[in-house]
Amino acid sequence: MIGIFDSGVGGLTVAKEIFKELPDSQIIYFGDTARLPYGTKGADFVKKYSKKITEWLLKKHCKVIVIACNTSSAWASDYLKKEFPNVPIFEMISPAIKATALATKNNRIGIIGTPGTIRSKAYEKKIQNSAKVFSQACPLFVPLVEEGLLNDKITTEAVKRYLSPLKEKGIDTLILGCTHYPLLKKEIEKYLGKKINIINPAESLAKEVKKYLEMNKIKIKKGSAHQFFFSDEPYNLEKISKACLNKKVIPIIKDPFNG
Amino acid sequence: MIGIFDSGVGGLTVAKEIFKELPDSQIIYFGDTARLPYGTKGADFVKKYSKKITEWLLKKHCKVIVIACNTSSAWASDYLKKEFPNVPIFEMISPAIKATALATKNNRIGIIGTPGTIRSKAYEKKIQNSAKVFSQACPLFVPLVEEGLLNDKITTEAVKRYLSPLKEKGIDTLILGCTHYPLLKKEIEKYLGKKINIINPAESLAKEVKKYLEMNKIKIKKGSAHQFFFSDEPYNLEKISKACLNKKVIPIIKDPFNG
Repeated sequence: MIGIFDSGVGGLTVAKEIFKELPDSQIIYFGDTARLPYGTKGADFVKKYSKKITEWLLKKHCKVIVIACNTSSAWASDYLKKEFPNVPIFEMISPAIKATALATKNNRIGIIGTPGTIRSKAYEKKIQNSAKVFSQACPLFVPLVEEGLLNDKITTEAVKRYLSPLKEKGIDTLILGCTHYPLLKKEIEKYLGKKINIINPAESLAKEVKKYLEMNKIKIKKGSAHQFFFSDEPYNLEKISKACLNKKVIPIIKDPFNG
Repeated sequence: MIGIFDSGVGGLTVAKEIFKELPDSQIIYFGDTARLPYGTKGADFVKKYSKKITEWLLKKHCKVIVIACNTSSAWASDYLKKEFPNVPIFEMISPAIKATALATKNNRIGIIGTPGTIRSKAYEKKIQNSAKVFSQACPLFVPLVEEGLLNDKITTEAVKRYLSPLKEKGIDTLILGCTHYPLLKKEIEKYLGKKINIINPAESLAKEVKKYLEMNKIKIKKGSAHQFFFSDEPYNLEKISKACLNKKVIPIIKDPFNG
C-alpha cells in the first residue's frame, strides 16, 4: 500500500494525483489534524511528528511513503530518508523543481506557500543559482480553501494581493508550494494569465512515484478499501474531499501519538 | 501570580484587559502554539491539554487561572473547576453573558467565534431561553488578525460577509466569542454601526477577576517580570503583542508536554 501523510486534509490533492497516475492503488492516508497546521510550527516539531507518522504507516504495511505536506517535505524529508534508508520516501519539492526547470524559459520563478515552507527556503536551496527565485507566503489561502471559498470575491482579492509582487517581477513559472493551493488554481490562473506556467508539485510527485514503482517492479496492493486516518476531527473534510476526490471520505479519527 | 492560557497569541487581548484592571499584577502566559488552533479540535483534546496547562501553571505558583481561550472555556472550564476545586478558575463565557444581559434591550443577541466555539453552543447553553441567540462561525478572522490585516479591504469584506446575516436578524448586542476578535472591533463597529453593543468577554472577565481578588483579599505578586511561554514558535507575535500590549514580548519557547 501507499502511505500518504499531511498535516491535515490538503494532502488529498496529492492523493488525487496518485489515483490519476496509479488508479486502483490502495492507500492509507494520515492527516495530523491534532497538530495542524505544520506551516507555523518549528523544524524540530515537524521532524518529530513526521518520523512518528512514518513509523506508524510502516507498521500498517505501507511499502512506499509519500510526504504530501510541503512543510514536512521542506524540513523532514532528508531526515526521514536517513532514518528509514530502506524505504522509498517521496517528497513534494524535488519533483516540482525538475518540472519547473523544464517549464521556465526566462529562469524567473515564483514560489508560494505557507509561512513555514517559505521561511525554510527549501525550494530556493534546491534551485540554487540556476534561476532567480521570488517567494511569497500566503497565510490566508489555507483558510480560504478550508472555507470552501474557491470561487469568491475575497479569494480573488487575496490572490491579487499575494501574487501581484510576483507578477511584477516578471516570473514565467509559479510553484504551488502548499497542498491546498491546487484548489485555487483557477483563481490563480485567472489573475496571472495563461502565459505563466503553474506547477502543481503533487502532479510531478505522482509521476515520479509511478516511474519508481515501474522501474523497481514493485507491486502495490490494488483495491478501493482506502483508509483515511486523522488524528483529530478534520475541519470541512466533506467539502475538500469532494473537491479533490469527487467523493465523500469517511474519516477514521485516531491519534496514535497521544494517550 | 496570575496564570493565563490560550491556544496561541490571541489570549494577549485578555492579558491587556487584566493589566487594565489590575495594573502591575505579575502574569505567566502560556500559549499552546504547538497544538493550535483549538477551534477546530475535538472536546476531549481541548480538555486534556487545558488540564495539563493548568497543572503546569499551578506548579509555577500561579494562584489564579484565567482561561483566555473561548474554545477551552466552552469545553474545558467545568471540567477544570471539578479537577481543581480549590483554585479560582476564570473563563470567558459567564462574565460575557452577564454583560450581555445588561446591554441588550431587544433580547436579540449575536455571537461570533471559531467553528469550535460555535459548534459547542457554549454561549447559547448559558443564555438558555432568556434571549434569542444567532451565532456565526468566522474562520477567516483569526488568520486575518494574524496577518495583521486589521484595517484592510479583505477584512472589511469578510466582516460584511460574516456579519450581514446577524445584522439582518436585528441583533442589538454582539459577543466577540474569540480572543482575536477584539483586534477587529473597529472594522466590526464600522459595519454594524454604533447602535449595536459589542461585548468583549476579556473586559468582563478582567473585571470579575479584580472583584474576586478584592472580595477574597487575595494579593497578587506585583511586578513587571511577566513570562510569556509558547509551546512552539508563535507566528507574528511581534505584530500582535504590539497591537495588544503596545510592546514587544520576548517569548520563551518550551513545550512541557512533549519530550
